[in-house]
Amino acid sequence: MLQPETEPPILTNRIEAFSDGVIAIVVTLLVLELRVPHLEGADTAALSAAVAALAPKFLSFVMSFVFVAVFWVAHHQLYHPIERSTPTLLWLNNIFLLCLTFIPFPTAMLGEYPDNPFAVTFFGAAMLAASLSFSLMRWYATLKASLAREDIDLQTRQWAMRRSLIGPGLYLAGIIVTVLNTALAISIYLVIPLLYLVPVRLGKK
Amino acid sequence: MLQPETEPPILTNRIEAFSDGVIAIVVTLLVLELRVPHLEGADTAALSAAVAALAPKFLSFVMSFVFVAVFWVAHHQLYHPIERSTPTLLWLNNIFLLCLTFIPFPTAMLGEYPDNPFAVTFFGAAMLAASLSFSLMRWYATLKASLAREDIDLQTRQWAMRRSLIGPGLYLAGIIVTVLNTALAISIYLVIPLLYLVPVRLGKK
Amino acid sequence: MLQPETEPPILTNRIEAFSDGVIAIVVTLLVLELRVPHLEGADTAALSAAVAALAPKFLSFVMSFVFVAVFWVAHHQLYHPIERSTPTLLWLNNIFLLCLTFIPFPTAMLGEYPDNPFAVTFFGAAMLAASLSFSLMRWYATLKASLAREDIDLQTRQWAMRRSLIGPGLYLAGIIVTVLNTALAISIYLVIPLLYLVPVRLGKK
Amino acid sequence: MLQPETEPPILTNRIEAFSDGVIAIVVTLLVLELRVPHLEGADTAALSAAVAALAPKFLSFVMSFVFVAVFWVAHHQLYHPIERSTPTLLWLNNIFLLCLTFIPFPTAMLGEYPDNPFAVTFFGAAMLAASLSFSLMRWYATLKASLAREDIDLQTRQWAMRRSLIGPGLYLAGIIVTVLNTALAISIYLVIPLLYLVPVRLGKK
Repeated sequence: MLQPETEPPILTNRIEAFSDGVIAIVVTLLVLELRVPHLEGADTAALSAAVAALAPKFLSFVMSFVFVAVFWVAHHQLYHPIERSTPTLLWLNNIFLLCLTFIPFPTAMLGEYPDNPFAVTFFGAAMLAASLSFSLMRWYATLKASLAREDIDLQTRQWAMRRSLIGPGLYLAGIIVTVLNTALAISIYLVIPLLYLVPVRLGKK
Repeated sequence: MLQPETEPPILTNRIEAFSDGVIAIVVTLLVLELRVPHLEGADTAALSAAVAALAPKFLSFVMSFVFVAVFWVAHHQLYHPIERSTPTLLWLNNIFLLCLTFIPFPTAMLGEYPDNPFAVTFFGAAMLAASLSFSLMRWYATLKASLAREDIDLQTRQWAMRRSLIGPGLYLAGIIVTVLNTALAISIYLVIPLLYLVPVRLGKK
Repeated sequence: MLQPETEPPILTNRIEAFSDGVIAIVVTLLVLELRVPHLEGADTAALSAAVAALAPKFLSFVMSFVFVAVFWVAHHQLYHPIERSTPTLLWLNNIFLLCLTFIPFPTAMLGEYPDNPFAVTFFGAAMLAASLSFSLMRWYATLKASLAREDIDLQTRQWAMRRSLIGPGLYLAGIIVTVLNTALAISIYLVIPLLYLVPVRLGKK
Repeated sequence: MLQPETEPPILTNRIEAFSDGVIAIVVTLLVLELRVPHLEGADTAALSAAVAALAPKFLSFVMSFVFVAVFWVAHHQLYHPIERSTPTLLWLNNIFLLCLTFIPFPTAMLGEYPDNPFAVTFFGAAMLAASLSFSLMRWYATLKASLAREDIDLQTRQWAMRRSLIGPGLYLAGIIVTVLNTALAISIYLVIPLLYLVPVRLGKK
């Protein structure tokens, strides 16, 4: 059952298109957890109070949107200099997408149970899994298999790899902190995406 | 943690593809708020009456569809002359997409509570936020950072910028009018997309 | 508020990408109406009976899928020879997409009330609206504005236009027939997509 | 009603884009079946127990994700050397996509009733249908109509065809085994995607 040599090559443009599609849908499905409250004969005060009570759901919606958007940007930057994929990269990408498609579930649970340590830990663990799967893909693509089209020097690739591990590290810290205080853990999760934003903007100046 | 110079450039074609994906999904998810009425042993009269009672939901579905479609056209026209993005533009676009993905929620609420001033105001505020985030992105791309590929003269860009502010201004007016009359506010929201359609057609003649 | 001449042109490739996205989502959302029956302590017989009872939903799922797929093919063939759009074509396309995104609702209603004349008529009317909006777009693109890139002779374009009106005509017939018999109307709806399939295959031989 | 010769050709790039869209949505919709448990005043133990009870749903989510991802890779490899489609290939692809869009339903049913022989059989039958529709499309494209752009030798195409039939064969075996033992059938379904992964990686060394 060995495969012949003529297996067609896997171009990254279709991997990127497929990933874009999945990420766009994940980001949009998050809103489905925001359900309009059903009230009998609601006046302005009752409806505004019911919507205000949804605040944890709005917060987890925005957190997950920003989290996934950060990954979309990172995915774009990782794949930009890569032209041809290998089957291994393809499946590392599929594992990463599997982690991303799962995110609406822990997001909804955190919105429903914002004070529950299990919900906060589960959210952090899902984010950790997505971050780790991305770091693994980056390690394979830039250091193990060296798939980049242009020669980016080793030092830069190693720098990017180390930077890529900050995310998983902080999510792990958040999970540990949950034992002490759930609000503190959520604050850590809120700060993590900002760390990814800041250096990118510094580098561009 | 400063970023090296070799950060890959961000091409707008993938930003456009991602935005197209998000907008296409938002526009299609709107229909999920139209739920088939569940009746026991329904005859023609009972079912048609139940569907007729959904009229506010149909109206808010169409309003939001047209609203998002107007933005899709504007997005296409804004990005067409831009080839390379900056991280700032990328994140202004993500904020705009965050506002768009939120729209199914106020749409559903307006469909459920068409007479409730809070629901009408909330709908207007969501539309205002989306309009403002788009205007901000346009200001940055065409006036602040001047990212357009071909040299479109400053006067035209300033004209487009002023025109882009009509939308947010009218949504703000709609929100204020809600205090007086919710039906009048909804009428304003209905008229706004038409204003975007008409001048485009005049300009092409 | 007249628009300057420098308005960027609208290329059809992004219209096609956006339409592909919307159609892909509509076609996939249809499955969300197939809900797994919730039974207490279900054995094989009870579960298989409950699934068998969903037969009208399966049928309306397949009917709508094929209907939308026929339009995807027709859309592809219409836009293939067109390179530049006009604002009018863009908005005729948006109206067509609005009709398509609506389809999951009448599909779900027909699956829920397969014998109800109102549900059957409503389904036919939604299909009629989508067909008519497509025919209108075809008329504008191929006869009114003559946007096709290569010169397809007038006779061929008129032939395609006439063929494009068979669909709306048959859906209208189906709606009228509903007064007599709902099963006959559904049979007509089932046959319509096949008519689009057959001539395409004849023409290719 | 015969069609003129001027029917525009069908390029596979838009078929691929449409298929990518449908597959990306199917893969992402699967998560919608994972619903957050609603508990009154839930503590950590109650919530974690409720989430642990969802294990069969997590398993069927991952199984279906991997199943669809395997098809996405196979679809990419099949279409890569094909430039122009025929109407027959287009509709064989649409039938394949119809089978894929259906998958969230049997996945949800298996997650709800993991021990029920009917649910396990139904899941296997849906997978069998999708596999068979893909094999039929491969047979048509590579052996019947020989649509591949470059000349891949007949032996390789026949080898790929035979390999493509392993999947349907094993799903059929799984369905038969369900009579004896549902857990054994599910184990077979879990192993099938791995068979597709292994040879691809061997072939690339």
